[in-house]
Amino acid sequence: MPSTTPLRVAMIGTAFMGRAHSQAWRVAPRMFELPREVEMAVIVGRDPGRTDAAARQMGWQEASTDWRSAVERPDIDIVDICTPGDSHEEIALAALAAGKHVLCEKPLANTVPEAERMAAAAREAARRGIVAMCGFSYRRTPAVALMQQIVAEGRLGDIRHVRAQYLQDWISDPEAPLTWRLDKEKAGSGALGDIGAHIIDSAQWVTDSLITAVSAQLRTFVTERPVLGDSVGLGGRGAAGGERGPVTVDDAAAFTATFDNGALGVFEATRMALGRRNANRIEVNGSTGSIAFDFERMNELEYYDAADEPGRQGFRRIQVTEPEHPYLAAWWPAGHGLGYEHAFVHEAVDLVRAIDAGEPIHPSFDDATQVQRVLAAVEASAADESRLTPVEGSK
Amino acid sequence: MPSTTPLRVAMIGTAFMGRAHSQAWRVAPRMFELPREVEMAVIVGRDPGRTDAAARQMGWQEASTDWRSAVERPDIDIVDICTPGDSHEEIALAALAAGKHVLCEKPLANTVPEAERMAAAAREAARRGIVAMCGFSYRRTPAVALMQQIVAEGRLGDIRHVRAQYLQDWISDPEAPLTWRLDKEKAGSGALGDIGAHIIDSAQWVTDSLITAVSAQLRTFVTERPVLGDSVGLGGRGAAGGERGPVTVDDAAAFTATFDNGALGVFEATRMALGRRNANRIEVNGSTGSIAFDFERMNELEYYDAADEPGRQGFRRIQVTEPEHPYLAAWWPAGHGLGYEHAFVHEAVDLVRAIDAGEPIHPSFDDATQVQRVLAAVEASAADESRLTPVEGSK
Amino acid sequence: MPSTTPLRVAMIGTAFMGRAHSQAWRVAPRMFELPREVEMAVIVGRDPGRTDAAARQMGWQEASTDWRSAVERPDIDIVDICTPGDSHEEIALAALAAGKHVLCEKPLANTVPEAERMAAAAREAARRGIVAMCGFSYRRTPAVALMQQIVAEGRLGDIRHVRAQYLQDWISDPEAPLTWRLDKEKAGSGALGDIGAHIIDSAQWVTDSLITAVSAQLRTFVTERPVLGDSVGLGGRGAAGGERGPVTVDDAAAFTATFDNGALGVFEATRMALGRRNANRIEVNGSTGSIAFDFERMNELEYYDAADEPGRQGFRRIQVTEPEHPYLAAWWPAGHGLGYEHAFVHEAVDLVRAIDAGEPIHPSFDDATQVQRVLAAVEASAADESRLTPVEGSK
Amino acid sequence: MPSTTPLRVAMIGTAFMGRAHSQAWRVAPRMFELPREVEMAVIVGRDPGRTDAAARQMGWQEASTDWRSAVERPDIDIVDICTPGDSHEEIALAALAAGKHVLCEKPLANTVPEAERMAAAAREAARRGIVAMCGFSYRRTPAVALMQQIVAEGRLGDIRHVRAQYLQDWISDPEAPLTWRLDKEKAGSGALGDIGAHIIDSAQWVTDSLITAVSAQLRTFVTERPVLGDSVGLGGRGAAGGERGPVTVDDAAAFTATFDNGALGVFEATRMALGRRNANRIEVNGSTGSIAFDFERMNELEYYDAADEPGRQGFRRIQVTEPEHPYLAAWWPAGHGLGYEHAFVHEAVDLVRAIDAGEPIHPSFDDATQVQRVLAAVEASAADESRLTPVEGSK
Repeated sequence: MPSTTPLRVAMIGTAFMGRAHSQAWRVAPRMFELPREVEMAVIVGRDPGRTDAAARQMGWQEASTDWRSAVERPDIDIVDICTPGDSHEEIALAALAAGKHVLCEKPLANTVPEAERMAAAAREAARRGIVAMCGFSYRRTPAVALMQQIVAEGRLGDIRHVRAQYLQDWISDPEAPLTWRLDKEKAGSGALGDIGAHIIDSAQWVTDSLITAVSAQLRTFVTERPVLGDSVGLGGRGAAGGERGPVTVDDAAAFTATFDNGALGVFEATRMALGRRNANRIEVNGSTGSIAFDFERMNELEYYDAADEPGRQGFRRIQVTEPEHPYLAAWWPAGHGLGYEHAFVHEAVDLVRAIDAGEPIHPSFDDATQVQRVLAAVEASAADESRLTPVEGSK
Repeated sequence: MPSTTPLRVAMIGTAFMGRAHSQAWRVAPRMFELPREVEMAVIVGRDPGRTDAAARQMGWQEASTDWRSAVERPDIDIVDICTPGDSHEEIALAALAAGKHVLCEKPLANTVPEAERMAAAAREAARRGIVAMCGFSYRRTPAVALMQQIVAEGRLGDIRHVRAQYLQDWISDPEAPLTWRLDKEKAGSGALGDIGAHIIDSAQWVTDSLITAVSAQLRTFVTERPVLGDSVGLGGRGAAGGERGPVTVDDAAAFTATFDNGALGVFEATRMALGRRNANRIEVNGSTGSIAFDFERMNELEYYDAADEPGRQGFRRIQVTEPEHPYLAAWWPAGHGLGYEHAFVHEAVDLVRAIDAGEPIHPSFDDATQVQRVLAAVEASAADESRLTPVEGSK
Repeated sequence: MPSTTPLRVAMIGTAFMGRAHSQAWRVAPRMFELPREVEMAVIVGRDPGRTDAAARQMGWQEASTDWRSAVERPDIDIVDICTPGDSHEEIALAALAAGKHVLCEKPLANTVPEAERMAAAAREAARRGIVAMCGFSYRRTPAVALMQQIVAEGRLGDIRHVRAQYLQDWISDPEAPLTWRLDKEKAGSGALGDIGAHIIDSAQWVTDSLITAVSAQLRTFVTERPVLGDSVGLGGRGAAGGERGPVTVDDAAAFTATFDNGALGVFEATRMALGRRNANRIEVNGSTGSIAFDFERMNELEYYDAADEPGRQGFRRIQVTEPEHPYLAAWWPAGHGLGYEHAFVHEAVDLVRAIDAGEPIHPSFDDATQVQRVLAAVEASAADESRLTPVEGSK
Repeated sequence: MPSTTPLRVAMIGTAFMGRAHSQAWRVAPRMFELPREVEMAVIVGRDPGRTDAAARQMGWQEASTDWRSAVERPDIDIVDICTPGDSHEEIALAALAAGKHVLCEKPLANTVPEAERMAAAAREAARRGIVAMCGFSYRRTPAVALMQQIVAEGRLGDIRHVRAQYLQDWISDPEAPLTWRLDKEKAGSGALGDIGAHIIDSAQWVTDSLITAVSAQLRTFVTERPVLGDSVGLGGRGAAGGERGPVTVDDAAAFTATFDNGALGVFEATRMALGRRNANRIEVNGSTGSIAFDFERMNELEYYDAADEPGRQGFRRIQVTEPEHPYLAAWWPAGHGLGYEHAFVHEAVDLVRAIDAGEPIHPSFDDATQVQRVLAAVEASAADESRLTPVEGSK
């Protein structure tokens, strides 16, 4: 570990994402050789007692309920935004203005204009050496990173099909409570922005190609749900309570897409696919090969090489656990898989390295704004009889 | 075997489907107890030499090159149509007019008007005790039949998602030759009508619900291919030859769909998904369970029951090889799987039983006409900026 | 089909194996181009009524209850023995003496001396141009045949491990009835001879290496079972009945083995592995590759090639359904799998070709006698404190 | 986090296991609510420079090269032994004598007498409130813990079969170097003690039954390997170097086993199964159900319940990622899997809780001694013609 000054982090948010990011900041400098040490300086939440408890439990030096002062403290280098989407813009703009590097959870914002203002601020800050990154963490799941690598090497030839699904089931039960994720004000959209955003980002990144137009349908299968007194987090199943409130976001989104490389995309995001706990899947078919991933088997990648000898062809189940694979040299021997939170560790690792090197990092706020435009086009198409709707700004 | 007179079959077509149907007629009465014996009376092809050879090889009593006279022979009871789609109407109408029971390969026709005339003729013939059936054979793959049974029992609750893919890869190579299946005149459409029709039929049948509107994209990735002197059948890979001709059908079709039960459908049919040899897949998610099938593992069905005890839930891999499963009591002990052609055997079994009982059978020509209307709506939507397009005749 | 005289078959046995073999004789000449036509001449059973019914149902020209005269009829060319093991020797010797080609179900006999006499008779008959074959049908499951091919090509290098399991569960229930398969007199042994014999044969054939010694344990978990009045076939589950009789064979056999190529073998055969309906599995690990098969996914083969690029290595799931694969050119397009009974069709195909060519065929009676010696060594080892026991006749 | 004094840990060993344990001590108190805080006080290695570097990288407060003084320091509460097996006894005895709680990596020792002395010391120390645990970490992989739970609930009925394999491939290449793990002096045995010990422990724990006798074979396929100057850790592939030294341990072990509940066991441990990177598998078949696990898909458990409705039976793929599952409530939402090192976190969690509660913990040194006796019986059997050899001390 070098003798340089450590990078001090302020994290806003204490729920699911806060726990995952805390684990990342804790582990990254201990499992990877980083150019800068990391210090978990301050965690910010709304409730003083809970935030204190979170700080103690998760190992932050301080707790605060005032995000703005935390963000502006001179001893802070990195601001890590883990709040619902409606607060991203305000916090990120303040952090960038204060000269902090920013890691912002996805989706970047709840609307395209918000995202564009954030991206503009990030571009401006970049001129001052500030790094901003959006947390599409699945890019740094090793098997997805390997997928990108294989496509980038040209192994798949011309890309023809992109097939991406993100299937969950946590609100299949009509009695699942009305959390903030089901509230359009807080969350922007439902399955679309929460998990659809992930597969849009993965698909574009893996194929190095942008979605240019979409034809979409949205569905809300359960339109009213039990209200909770204080609904934070992913919520439980079958919460009781007499009062019901309206679900104002989509339960599911489905769309076909055109890519600027000519590929045909099919996307589906839903929280209502019973039995599919977290089936974040992407498959790409090209003219010389195919590749497929399912997060439910996150340490595996299926790879088909049409150049294999006839009669010996088949999808190879690569266990993405080898030192040759992205991020894996820092971990365990081959065959000893990683888990969900490791992608956040890798995110932290790459961010620290980018900050130290003064280099840009992806997904940038511009990348994330493009995802936001796809989300907007999906909503526009769904509202316009599924008409094929161009993604704003695409050629 | 009863002492009644046997049912005598005339089969038109000698290629891939002809071979599969021959195997069905040969095996059905020997593995199942049928109320009527079956005789493979006459096979009809275009080329006399080849048809003679086919008759000998496949075990037909006679060979003929004159379909019309074969169809009108008084000693024929069943006409089995295994030709490309452009000839279905003429043959079927002649057969029905001659009082023959008809089994017609899918898709029923190349256009909706053709299909409607065939369906009208079949309805009229039904009044005379004539049975007509369209060969959506996958319905009678035991795992698909079990899927239908489980849904019909109400195990899945309200249906929310239908996810159907039919992925093949036999023309991924741009040098794959220009067979009749790539010629709109002969085939009507490409992946859409050939394999998309199968998953449309399965999805509607399994869910007992009809597609009411679609939003679609079609793609032809390889627009010219080598011409063969005499291209019949599925063709080989990388056939040589200097001359090239235009591909006039789609290589791939993708569409989202609305069902009359409120479900959201996502469909994809392609012949360009490298490594997916015959991935005919369907998954249905309901409010109390899910079920999934992939023909590449045709003897398995994945079934998720949300009523299973928490912590013990998961997709069950049912080996659909038990005496309790559809059609299986006639075959082997549990765990001894069936193959592709067995669905055709079951088709023959059910057809013979329906004829003997004087009862209608499904998929009827009406069922198949409805599929044809979905195909037409897909093409219309794709030609109209993917606009959500109602399926003709749906409520 | 050639103009030569057909080969006429007499089949002894009407139960499960009789049905499978009937299907084979029926289908082989129609799906494959054979040098000789096949005629299903006569089926022989014990009960006249049932045998008549079986003949009609399965399509045999005649029924008989006198195996000896059927075997000696001058118009019979092939005798197909599908009876329990205690009658194999007598029938086979009579058939060979009468100059008939013989297909005998496995295990070849119930004891080594019986097998040796049969093998001696077969060797003698071979000098008169007579062909004898033992029905280890799994060799002709395409994926197993491909496995053998890949090993024979040297792709796996030096063989180190052979891991073979045959797991069934049809008598897990203590109330499953006492069929002939649980009677040592009829069946010779239990899981060992019935299904253990299959994996011994496959392992030796695939690796082209013989088992030289074994160290074994046998188990009978359920020692008494309900007696049926007339127990033939695989029996049902939970048959009722007050009387109970002793199970005189093993429910399960497990042994380690040495091979003459230095490999270490681990074998397990059981009828008590709940949920494993017919998991006939074999895996071979060599110094440069591995290969694995599970009959429950009979159209797949897992192949690992250590020469694949580092970071891109993994077991390939080969769908053994391509024209390049053994026996597949005669069947359907890639991705359209076969079923259990197809191995019997391939057995018939190869036997007819061998007879026509006047060439020997495998598994020969000698091959099957060697399997019998392994079975005997397993029983001897189990009776002698699991001591490593040489297989008689091995170097 | 409570205000009690923290538990201070001294860890001996800096290699693979040292890294895994460091991650465990770091993460356990942050992701779980523990009754005592944990401090990573001192790490002990042989080389001063490397140990300093390890302390910095892995986050230990101090580095030392003197294990004895580290173990005896009054400020140390827990001694964590991550060295090769030949040093376990000396360190553990010193630590227990000094009144420290001990976590010792597996196998507990290189010989039964060593293990017995350690177990005796642990029993004696237990009377003083000292806790000792052996690091069979796979017990705390959630899917294995769930497996144990399901069996303990009686869901499987009478246990009949235990089928356990631990397949690796890291020394398949004859050029893989001669690490300490291939040296009998250091490692005690090869695949047998390293990975065979794991499946022996899992099998006995999951079934709550002890192995009473074994019949075994051992193999060393590659008898000489390149010598490295300083071979620590798992080693790389194909290390160069002219000099070669003898491999003094087994590459593979295979044995059948009897359990005190009557079950038949089949075990195999190898480092030569190409393509199997870390296939730590166990399957248990009982009279009413079955259960199977493969570490290569460590977040899944296959469960078959014979009480499921006929025709709806099948192995359920349980994603062991739900709050209902062992250890999972502390982690992520359902479907977000864990990785290899999480089992070590759980080990640390349970150890801290046991220390705080003053309660014994498993696997105890007695449990581990029993595993050691099985290992000894395997070696004795292999040296005695595979004769079925009783496990010392078993009834």
